[in-house]
Amino acid sequence: MSIQSNEEDSFMMQQQIEGRNAVIEAYRAGKVIDKLFVQDGCQDGPVLTIKREAKKHDTFIKYVSKERLDQMSETGKHQGVIATIAAYNYSEVEDILRIARDKNEDPFIFILDGIEDPHNLGAIIRTANLCGAHGVIIPKNHAASLTATVARTSAGALNYTPVARVTNITRCIEELKKEGLWFVCADMDGETMYKLNLKGPIGLVIGNEGEGVSRLVRESCDFRAGIPMKGDIDSLNASVAAGVLAYEIVRQRLQ
Amino acid sequence: MSIQSNEEDSFMMQQQIEGRNAVIEAYRAGKVIDKLFVQDGCQDGPVLTIKREAKKHDTFIKYVSKERLDQMSETGKHQGVIATIAAYNYSEVEDILRIARDKNEDPFIFILDGIEDPHNLGAIIRTANLCGAHGVIIPKNHAASLTATVARTSAGALNYTPVARVTNITRCIEELKKEGLWFVCADMDGETMYKLNLKGPIGLVIGNEGEGVSRLVRESCDFRAGIPMKGDIDSLNASVAAGVLAYEIVRQRLQ
Repeated sequence: MSIQSNEEDSFMMQQQIEGRNAVIEAYRAGKVIDKLFVQDGCQDGPVLTIKREAKKHDTFIKYVSKERLDQMSETGKHQGVIATIAAYNYSEVEDILRIARDKNEDPFIFILDGIEDPHNLGAIIRTANLCGAHGVIIPKNHAASLTATVARTSAGALNYTPVARVTNITRCIEELKKEGLWFVCADMDGETMYKLNLKGPIGLVIGNEGEGVSRLVRESCDFRAGIPMKGDIDSLNASVAAGVLAYEIVRQRLQ
Repeated sequence: MSIQSNEEDSFMMQQQIEGRNAVIEAYRAGKVIDKLFVQDGCQDGPVLTIKREAKKHDTFIKYVSKERLDQMSETGKHQGVIATIAAYNYSEVEDILRIARDKNEDPFIFILDGIEDPHNLGAIIRTANLCGAHGVIIPKNHAASLTATVARTSAGALNYTPVARVTNITRCIEELKKEGLWFVCADMDGETMYKLNLKGPIGLVIGNEGEGVSRLVRESCDFRAGIPMKGDIDSLNASVAAGVLAYEIVRQRLQ
């Protein structure tokens, strides 16, 4: 197994995995494989297993000649398969707080309580960057992680805006409260956002696409902010809701 | 060729096309085919042509048994292929104005100058519905049209919010100005949105994902509204920008 870096994309480090067992192991370890290169005509058991995994994980498969693989290979032992995986660096919550301190600004952090769609996650990281938030916190489980799709949808924001992963969102909120942050969550039944005071050090909590903010997380928030809804359907797209609330915070901070 | 309706989705009329030539013709006529059912093992020339078209248009293909196709077929002449197409009804600009009149509200219309991504179009129609806009206007060419993806992403809003298609956005704006509407477009170099007066009958113009609002359309707008940007990257996702601007209009209207 060989892991090699290249800089195909400016904002992510690409790693290359070569050989059948290494690729199967990578899938089993839950690594997000970005692209899979398979030698034309390879049909034996392990390769079929890899192709099944690829299908299951929606990996883009490219069939190439043995010569092409030989050329790509760093080890000379690709055995007909090379996978590229995207490895993004997660930050720590402390890094996010430090950025705010360094800029001499009140911390402004997005907390995503279970965003599952990578397009939404990417769009939200993009919004976080542009509205001046210092970072984004996501949960380790049951949520989208930093994949190539997220990086692409973030339009480069992943280069600049740190994303931290935590095991328990509620505990993370409790710890950040000790740092002086207030927490506001998006909630359809909350007080209209225009009526809330959203200035000062703030954490903006956005819930899952279908379920919204989970009960425990909602209960640990100081405010519940509602976006006025005049229409016939239930709720805004999660990344749109995040944008609307984030810019209400921006508006109040600019006053 | 047989066209038959069913109500699989509450918010769209599904049509079914049966037979090889009918399906090939549908692709050539630019119809958006939602799903393609192909008989297992069919490998002849016309079926391969259909599969090539399906690949090109990113159609979801489902391989089924002859018995299943026989069961689905209304004509008994499916020849191994049945396609379902989604047919959405477009409204007229006049319908949108009438809805505003009937509600005794100042017209509030979204004008999309070349949104290409169906997920963005769906999310924007969803936002239009929830922020109380009376309808959405899109161009006939070089833009996403009302496909099944748009309907799904709109989360049902397409049931309620009329979408009109026009040949020329600039001409449409000029005509709506005669009805008393003011037009504001999203523009990074525009005046900060909080400083503009966005009350009254209004058209909110959102540009293409990559290019923004086109020059002629921008020049026909009365205001250019900027969203404050503090970050390191260029611009918000188009549906997020639409949401942020729409809710600034909502905020001002609520005052």
